[in-house]
Amino acid sequence: MNTPTKILLDESEMPTRWYNVVPDLPVPPPPQLHPGTLQPAQPEDFGPLFPQALIEQEMSTERYIDIPGEVLDVYRLWRPSPLFRAHRLEKILDTPARIYYKYEGVSPAGSHKPNTAVPQVYYNAREGIKKLTTETGAGQWGSSLAFACAQFGLECEVWQVAASYRAKPYRRTMMEVWGGRVHPSPSELTEFGRELLKQDPDHPGSLGIAISEAVSQAVASEDTRYALGSVLNHVLLHQTIIGEEALLQLAKVGETPDVLVGCTGGGSNFGGLAFPFLREKLAGRMNPTIRCVEPTACPTLTKGEFRYDFGDTAGLTPLMKMHTLGHSFIPEPIHAGGLRYHGMAPLVSHVYDLGLVEAIAIPQRECFAGALQFARSEGIVPAPEPTHAIAAAVREALACRESGEEKVILTALCGHGHLDLASYDQYLHGDMQDLELSDEAIAEAMKDVPVLA
Amino acid sequence: MNTPTKILLDESEMPTRWYNVVPDLPVPPPPQLHPGTLQPAQPEDFGPLFPQALIEQEMSTERYIDIPGEVLDVYRLWRPSPLFRAHRLEKILDTPARIYYKYEGVSPAGSHKPNTAVPQVYYNAREGIKKLTTETGAGQWGSSLAFACAQFGLECEVWQVAASYRAKPYRRTMMEVWGGRVHPSPSELTEFGRELLKQDPDHPGSLGIAISEAVSQAVASEDTRYALGSVLNHVLLHQTIIGEEALLQLAKVGETPDVLVGCTGGGSNFGGLAFPFLREKLAGRMNPTIRCVEPTACPTLTKGEFRYDFGDTAGLTPLMKMHTLGHSFIPEPIHAGGLRYHGMAPLVSHVYDLGLVEAIAIPQRECFAGALQFARSEGIVPAPEPTHAIAAAVREALACRESGEEKVILTALCGHGHLDLASYDQYLHGDMQDLELSDEAIAEAMKDVPVLA
Repeated sequence: MNTPTKILLDESEMPTRWYNVVPDLPVPPPPQLHPGTLQPAQPEDFGPLFPQALIEQEMSTERYIDIPGEVLDVYRLWRPSPLFRAHRLEKILDTPARIYYKYEGVSPAGSHKPNTAVPQVYYNAREGIKKLTTETGAGQWGSSLAFACAQFGLECEVWQVAASYRAKPYRRTMMEVWGGRVHPSPSELTEFGRELLKQDPDHPGSLGIAISEAVSQAVASEDTRYALGSVLNHVLLHQTIIGEEALLQLAKVGETPDVLVGCTGGGSNFGGLAFPFLREKLAGRMNPTIRCVEPTACPTLTKGEFRYDFGDTAGLTPLMKMHTLGHSFIPEPIHAGGLRYHGMAPLVSHVYDLGLVEAIAIPQRECFAGALQFARSEGIVPAPEPTHAIAAAVREALACRESGEEKVILTALCGHGHLDLASYDQYLHGDMQDLELSDEAIAEAMKDVPVLA
Repeated sequence: MNTPTKILLDESEMPTRWYNVVPDLPVPPPPQLHPGTLQPAQPEDFGPLFPQALIEQEMSTERYIDIPGEVLDVYRLWRPSPLFRAHRLEKILDTPARIYYKYEGVSPAGSHKPNTAVPQVYYNAREGIKKLTTETGAGQWGSSLAFACAQFGLECEVWQVAASYRAKPYRRTMMEVWGGRVHPSPSELTEFGRELLKQDPDHPGSLGIAISEAVSQAVASEDTRYALGSVLNHVLLHQTIIGEEALLQLAKVGETPDVLVGCTGGGSNFGGLAFPFLREKLAGRMNPTIRCVEPTACPTLTKGEFRYDFGDTAGLTPLMKMHTLGHSFIPEPIHAGGLRYHGMAPLVSHVYDLGLVEAIAIPQRECFAGALQFARSEGIVPAPEPTHAIAAAVREALACRESGEEKVILTALCGHGHLDLASYDQYLHGDMQDLELSDEAIAEAMKDVPVLA
């Protein structure tokens, strides 16, 4: 094979529209519900949270939505992102498979998150919003939003899960470099935060709690809105530029994927990579196996239930039908691999429920073992999240070594691990444990999920 | 101007040879001297330190040297690197200047250092060497060498300046991810290290000391050699791929630089960017002003003396004629901007002495102020070292705003700052001080420099 190492696109070849999978699905996804009335949420219900343009995208049934020129201008700072052929990884795995990975770590924040942060800030700016609030865990989303806010002159206020705020001071600094203000969550700034701190002054926080705090601050102010980094339809929509570019890049080298694996936390990286390929599959133009990969420590798809639940811990968001471990679920602090959210994007949950995609869970030491093989061959040190995708790709490639099949494996390396090296330190020095979430723990967390008629 | 944001080259356009500036210089550079005989060093004097191929390159007067195919294979993991037009920085500076920056942070280690680490490891591997030793400060060089050793199956042992080893544990982890072994320097593993630790068990170390330790370990073992990340002729040679690519990229958009600014520590980033442009200038094909930028805290070119000195603190290396602050010089620990080496590449020193390039020193708060403007417009968070180049480019761009000149400014962003965010934290929270090295301090450090007849 004479495939180049990097398959590049010119800026002139960058896709100029996002893809919405909804109109192509055999069954429409269930609506979000108003948390008070339990009736399907109306556009105006989202008004205090999001600008009009994003609410329209959230509910859109249009197949394609144009990317505004101002957004394309910022995308060009790092997009189109490269697609790599993993020649050197294939060699050390001694596999006949051909492995391709789409690399999103080239963005300023080092992950795929700016793909949605930039349009979210742009639409807010266009509607006169002055400030955005958000939550962040390890900090990838918070730093992406801070970067995007710097581009359009908005203020950015971030509630960071307290455990990460303390353990990863450099992500906070990165947000501040881009002008963001960062608070540990739970914080003294919201009623919900104060309540939790009263119970436990050293509360480690969780994504669900941080969302509650950021949402409550946004709705309390006229010129402030909230931004979410994953889960919602419009977020997955913006991320489809990943898959659209990958399609063009694979076409350049005459390949179609046999297997596509992507890690799933909230689902935006996976949806972004997979949905354009799902479109091609549903249209009969290719037939890849499409597989979600999640941690055994937070097995939302493989062990969670598919039912209506809140997106946050305090129960402020609309109810979404999704695979969930319960909105009060907090993964073990020692789980280092990211992907810690209690739920899963409703769209990813829906296509999984329809049987259009598969899902597997992988324990974290296998993930970091794969990441080390990857780093020592391909060079890039992956973020903890995509170590799951790499481990799944390695499994596939080794199966091909057994079977002799020359499968084309596609995955997304959604970010680098430069700010997550503490996890590698744990792995290298033997302090990492595999975590399997027990059925009892899940049943316990599911107790708080509302039972709908 | 419709210049794209990123000017890319295909892998097929990547230069396949390095450029050696020596044969094009009007006066040949002074030879290195054997530290014992004080006579010009002979190839065999370097035998215990370097493989034959690198010794030949160190002394070569050939204008071009072919890049081996195995090296090109690894380069392709990130090369050709992008050249950016800084549209968004120009806008916030409101300048008619056109600013271009060559970005080397796309390499796995996040800097330009792998450009030389890869060929150095390759040539050692080809000559049967099993292990390389080296020194590192902040860790950019050590991690680059560890990455390169992983590619060719060599062991890598790194002495890291103790102050950095303690303050930056994640760089150590990064080296370990690639399979490197890291020791704080001074260490108990060498006689020189033990001596220094006897004087001060908390010795902060310095680059010069770490070089002495790494060199002494390399010469003590048959199948071990030493690798240096800057200063030497062959290192600058390998880095010229930066400037060669930039020439091709600027030609694609029909530009020639009026001003070229590059930060100088040991000189390899600067030489790599500047020497191909210096060739063009000497040949009369363009006429850019070429300017070195260094920190006021370590003003090797602007305040150091041009004379023979050792490359390391213990005096084990050949004597090199270079701009030096004295081989026992240790910059203030609170200087955060990198570029801390006591000397300057003999080739850079020589072209500066000949008046072919200029030099300025910039205090660190101006550098970080420029870096913040850069990060908030262009997105990328620069490493501390290239903040000097950015500050110099900003000075030029603002001068153009005054004069109305539409100058083309070229600089190299030699690395990202993801592992150096503590320096930004210092700057953002007001803990950063400007440092001006006094004449007395320089005179003191120069006392140990040998006086040659």
